[in-house]
Amino acid sequence: MIITSNANQQVKNIIQLLQKTKARKKQGLFVVEGWKMCREMPGDWLKMLYMTESFYEKMPEEEREQYDRDGVIQLVSESVFGHMSDTKTPQGILGLGVQPRYTWEQICRGERSLVVVLEDLQDPGNVGTILRTAEGAGVSGILLSRQSADLFGPKTVRSTMGSIYRMPFYHAEDLPEAVRELKKEGYTVYAADLGGSRPYDEKDYTRKTAILIGNEGNGLSKALLQTADGAVRIPMEGHAESLNAAMAAGILMYEAARQRRRDRRS
Amino acid sequence: MIITSNANQQVKNIIQLLQKTKARKKQGLFVVEGWKMCREMPGDWLKMLYMTESFYEKMPEEEREQYDRDGVIQLVSESVFGHMSDTKTPQGILGLGVQPRYTWEQICRGERSLVVVLEDLQDPGNVGTILRTAEGAGVSGILLSRQSADLFGPKTVRSTMGSIYRMPFYHAEDLPEAVRELKKEGYTVYAADLGGSRPYDEKDYTRKTAILIGNEGNGLSKALLQTADGAVRIPMEGHAESLNAAMAAGILMYEAARQRRRDRRS
Repeated sequence: MIITSNANQQVKNIIQLLQKTKARKKQGLFVVEGWKMCREMPGDWLKMLYMTESFYEKMPEEEREQYDRDGVIQLVSESVFGHMSDTKTPQGILGLGVQPRYTWEQICRGERSLVVVLEDLQDPGNVGTILRTAEGAGVSGILLSRQSADLFGPKTVRSTMGSIYRMPFYHAEDLPEAVRELKKEGYTVYAADLGGSRPYDEKDYTRKTAILIGNEGNGLSKALLQTADGAVRIPMEGHAESLNAAMAAGILMYEAARQRRRDRRS
Repeated sequence: MIITSNANQQVKNIIQLLQKTKARKKQGLFVVEGWKMCREMPGDWLKMLYMTESFYEKMPEEEREQYDRDGVIQLVSESVFGHMSDTKTPQGILGLGVQPRYTWEQICRGERSLVVVLEDLQDPGNVGTILRTAEGAGVSGILLSRQSADLFGPKTVRSTMGSIYRMPFYHAEDLPEAVRELKKEGYTVYAADLGGSRPYDEKDYTRKTAILIGNEGNGLSKALLQTADGAVRIPMEGHAESLNAAMAAGILMYEAARQRRRDRRS
């Protein structure tokens, strides 16, 4: 059966899930758009693929047959699809997925884990870009406060370019407490801070390390800053006051990756 | 005289300048929003400040008097301001400025200049973030193709967080030719390329250096890639295919900055 009405319950729910953090949290679901993001979604996360007939027809045959066998394809009319879609030039496919749950151990286990801690980041693009860069830099997991931008909002998911499927994360009720927990497990904790006493590249990130990144406007809270073993700054030439939060996180994560490659080689 | 009509020619022109690259290029003007961006604009760029009466009243006295003396304040009604503004929650002030022109020499002079070359970058947020990060990393200038996102579009300007006022740039008619020109002046040229043969941190960026960054979707053109002395890749763990273009540029610029700090110290 093809869905032809905007009043269809499934259609209404997809729109809810795209627009409302609350709906996503309550249902534990999220929506992705486009073929790349749908195809990369792990099989056990995927609940349903909504697509236009024209997309169904031009879809690679092998994948179409697999999805048909799994019974996860739901056709919708072009006009209904346009109504559901969050993007300007929709491809004609979107996917409904189950949000994963990771345990504390999945984030911080490992002899040389690298954990990135995000405190109240608000910009979905920043959070998504951090996940994408974190995967590239070999980060083990992301620890974040409940007040951070929702990882499963459409803009965040899009900015991850698929890393949302592979980067473990953990929401801490009490972020300073969670960081103290990391320290008990042997982590050295560095806070990215404009007023940090040492340039970031003078520190050693080759052992168990956590990097703290603060909110875009306000930086790190005092309570979280106090948990750190050291505050590091990214040296700034010229008159720029700060870097974008995702950029700062990326530079620190890749400094850790660089040191770890050298350490392995020596 | 306070402007109270949306049909006012100045109001119409501000909207044109916010919306249309062509209008900005033809007139050589651009528009910024918010007090921070207006206040930081160099005096000889500033043509006019448009503001609401309520903004005028709460403006710091010293600056208000200076701007009044310069005759650059134009009041507009709240409703006209809402009509002009490009932002969701307007502060009540926007500035009209003259686009600067830099010479070739301003970009690439200097014993140890670091030049970033952008080929056809399309995302205004990426271009703006690159300028902001470039200032922090001590980059001497940005060389870019004519097909790149307009530096003076509202989103780009906003993303620079003021670096647009301080980072010299130069639009090259023929980008590969311009890079060959840099080489004649003693530059070593590195291309950021996913297929690069060496990790980026194995190269020396302490002398005159140019870093080439390609378009978000397609990377660098073959013609530009061929001008490079070497192609460097940013090592990627996991399954992420690439980094965001601004992030890749930032990591390379800050590696250059890191090496230059160490070089100065030794």
